[in-house]
Amino acid sequence: MNSLDPTIVSGAQALVQTLLRAGVDTCFANPGTSEMHFVAALDQFADMGCVLGLFEGVVTGAADGYGRMAGKPAATLLHCGPGLANGLANLHNARRAHTPILNIVGDQATYHRPLDPPLAADTEGWARPVSVWTRTVTASGSIGADAAEAVQASLTAPGGIATLILPSDVCWSAGGVVADPLGVPAPPRVDEAAITMAAGLLRSGEPCALLLGPGALRAADLAIAARIGAATGAKIFAPYAAPRVERGRGRFPVTRLSFLLEQSMAMLKGIKHLILVGGTRPVTFFAHPGKPQRPEPADSHIHALARPDQDLRDFLERLGNALEAPEAAPPAPAAAPQPARGAVTSEAVAQTLNALLPDDAVVVDESVSFGRFFYGATHSAAPHDWLALTGGAIGDGLPMATGAAVAVPGRRVVTLQADGSALYTVQALWTQARESLDVTTVILSNRKYAILLGELANVGAHPGRTALDMLSLGNPDLDWVKITNGFGVEAARAETMERFATLFTQANRQRGPFLIELVIP
Amino acid sequence: MNSLDPTIVSGAQALVQTLLRAGVDTCFANPGTSEMHFVAALDQFADMGCVLGLFEGVVTGAADGYGRMAGKPAATLLHCGPGLANGLANLHNARRAHTPILNIVGDQATYHRPLDPPLAADTEGWARPVSVWTRTVTASGSIGADAAEAVQASLTAPGGIATLILPSDVCWSAGGVVADPLGVPAPPRVDEAAITMAAGLLRSGEPCALLLGPGALRAADLAIAARIGAATGAKIFAPYAAPRVERGRGRFPVTRLSFLLEQSMAMLKGIKHLILVGGTRPVTFFAHPGKPQRPEPADSHIHALARPDQDLRDFLERLGNALEAPEAAPPAPAAAPQPARGAVTSEAVAQTLNALLPDDAVVVDESVSFGRFFYGATHSAAPHDWLALTGGAIGDGLPMATGAAVAVPGRRVVTLQADGSALYTVQALWTQARESLDVTTVILSNRKYAILLGELANVGAHPGRTALDMLSLGNPDLDWVKITNGFGVEAARAETMERFATLFTQANRQRGPFLIELVIP
Repeated sequence: MNSLDPTIVSGAQALVQTLLRAGVDTCFANPGTSEMHFVAALDQFADMGCVLGLFEGVVTGAADGYGRMAGKPAATLLHCGPGLANGLANLHNARRAHTPILNIVGDQATYHRPLDPPLAADTEGWARPVSVWTRTVTASGSIGADAAEAVQASLTAPGGIATLILPSDVCWSAGGVVADPLGVPAPPRVDEAAITMAAGLLRSGEPCALLLGPGALRAADLAIAARIGAATGAKIFAPYAAPRVERGRGRFPVTRLSFLLEQSMAMLKGIKHLILVGGTRPVTFFAHPGKPQRPEPADSHIHALARPDQDLRDFLERLGNALEAPEAAPPAPAAAPQPARGAVTSEAVAQTLNALLPDDAVVVDESVSFGRFFYGATHSAAPHDWLALTGGAIGDGLPMATGAAVAVPGRRVVTLQADGSALYTVQALWTQARESLDVTTVILSNRKYAILLGELANVGAHPGRTALDMLSLGNPDLDWVKITNGFGVEAARAETMERFATLFTQANRQRGPFLIELVIP
Repeated sequence: MNSLDPTIVSGAQALVQTLLRAGVDTCFANPGTSEMHFVAALDQFADMGCVLGLFEGVVTGAADGYGRMAGKPAATLLHCGPGLANGLANLHNARRAHTPILNIVGDQATYHRPLDPPLAADTEGWARPVSVWTRTVTASGSIGADAAEAVQASLTAPGGIATLILPSDVCWSAGGVVADPLGVPAPPRVDEAAITMAAGLLRSGEPCALLLGPGALRAADLAIAARIGAATGAKIFAPYAAPRVERGRGRFPVTRLSFLLEQSMAMLKGIKHLILVGGTRPVTFFAHPGKPQRPEPADSHIHALARPDQDLRDFLERLGNALEAPEAAPPAPAAAPQPARGAVTSEAVAQTLNALLPDDAVVVDESVSFGRFFYGATHSAAPHDWLALTGGAIGDGLPMATGAAVAVPGRRVVTLQADGSALYTVQALWTQARESLDVTTVILSNRKYAILLGELANVGAHPGRTALDMLSLGNPDLDWVKITNGFGVEAARAETMERFATLFTQANRQRGPFLIELVIP
């Protein structure tokens, strides 16, 4: 292979060119031996931005954050089955978020895999459960066409993970053919009958609610839904695990269902008709002995009137028109509060966010138990996007923030991050330093798996010393400032809200990453 | 459920009691919501030792190290499919090592999974490729019997991973029945015909070699193999990725094949018959353009005369007797060298290990490229076990050392650890601190993925700036002392061999963990 002879194109070269033509210009990578030709090919195409992660969970979580904010896929670059395995948890989250991702896994040469070398594993088998599309490329001649199809699959509504497995010989062999992008099919429109039915329910006088799915949570969707709600009295909800909500001062707020069954039940109390707009019927994260699994009233009806893959904006617009719902103005913004003072509480953190969140920030929320209150209490902050943990697999926060910052340079990313969860993918901090990403990480440091203490009570278990030890992050305490500095990121500790406000303001004004360990008493 | 009423036993309680009866008394855990009853049950049975990991890769790697040293399984405790996924890479390594592990994965309640809650994933599908046995328990009444079968499966030669998936309702429901341990079948003896054939080959006068598999690398195996070699002129080899070799002064050395094809080819040059004793035919980790995939000469014959699941000690003894190979004394120990002085080189590190390795140490080797020289150059160190990375999935070193230290208290564990690989599961340091484990970690800090630079050359790729960036761990440099201190472990940096010798001696003499960042110039 002579990379300077334009008539000889390797599979890897054809792949990179195909990706660029399709608009995929960012690659989050943790490469290994089998990806060396791909890595070498990246050199020849300066338009392909390459971001290194020290661990595959960082790579896939970053691709999740990037995809949510960019609305198009980043490529990953992972090494063999075990490298993919390390990235599966955050791919699971991305799958639940319908995030478009082009998941590239380099693997054994086609003729080497049958010899079962040490790193051979069931790469395809591990990829399929998180992927909408999975293919192992078999020849350099088809790699371009396969890649074009993968990008198309990832972008086809509602979006998803397309996994492209690349045997190393397919990458290094000559005969690569660059492919043109394939058109992405427009999401199908919802049938008129469904609009009519929805309008009928909303006019029936019986208590109704709209539950907006992951694809109907942008400001424009929420504005139409708010019109519908104002005209009919219907309540409007978002799912608890919403991938991206556009919100903040001057926008229409939307209430999320809660992680806690009892709270969701209270929100849905009295509802007779729950209309699903591109989402799924709510279900609790876990079953608990003797408790309901669904939050809606037992005598309510579920109406799935728009599927996740359909055109949800169009559905809402047509429904609003059918109801002749008048335009509505968003609620007048509350006066911005002052930052909180004194002791660190969940309410105080929300108040400070309302006061100090930068304009147009991206909030990545993996605050878990301490932060359950945050979303509901921060609508009066400056306009922002709110990205939540969608699949419950903790360890998405720091990586997702990393990818989001790559996707939208110039916007500040604020990560509200539980300490236990942060430790799964703490290596993301190094990538934030290396790429000088504008990320402010707030570690909510309570030094325990607080969520599990709640769960022990929920399931009726009575913990003793051993059990409590399994839920504690103390002994020894983690020193977040040292860990963070060790990864090359500036950090400081706050034990009061005054200190937090000072650090938060300073962090958001400077370029590059900063981490605040906020000590929860 | 009333845990004080002995007539009412939950599934979780029956499980823990069954494990204890079967001799499984150590559990490496990263629990979540679905495991709360199991965690609560641990309280009631003080004989079950429970060790918390901050990340699942730590848990599974620790179980790998424990199983290699204890010769019996530890239990893991993982949370749902994504938690299992985070542990798969080190389970892949354990699978290649035939390590016995009881891999417990808590999961959705049987009646909740069909509702597809956010954390539902293909738990069974992800587990099967690494497991010799996989089962989802369906009722509390069978959990004891299922667990007894799982332990038996993990211990049946050559050993492996038994994955027991526990829906949460199975754990919390009454009706648990404790089961007695099941007998582990003795490994089948090799047929006499194979002994005769092996003896015939070894007496034929044609150049022969024995390749000992993972189950034939204890000191007693190596002593018999050495007798056979001395009597017949056969060469004796171990695989490169050997899970556990007993070696050091006063023992018979065994040469490992190399990671590098050319070196393995040189070792096997001229061999006409390669006799596999419970191992597999050697194969390169990766294919490279135009290079062989097998190291043995093209005109050699492979004879697989003992399978991995057979009684290999018995095979070697009978073969030695058939050959009337006389007893042999191990080579006289070399005089212990002085610790190396001056610049940090691979040879200097090996010299210092020969001088200063504590008696009866356990060496965990994930030194990758810088440490390729170590094994071959350290046989004159004090007697020790040498544990290698078996499946090529990096990130096993720190966890494996953690589990080994739990398995053999009183023995010092020395981890020779490449920096890039250490970052995959760096959270293991916290568990070492929490459990006060006697582990000395030596970070070989070269601040790059050195192995990949070699691979770029191997595959004929010509790296430019972007490619080289993807292989560098600099910008920013990682500060290992800070990271390690942040996880609660003492640490210091060495830039000369004198300083390394001082720190290494001090670390090995004290109780608890210590990390040395050895800066590679």
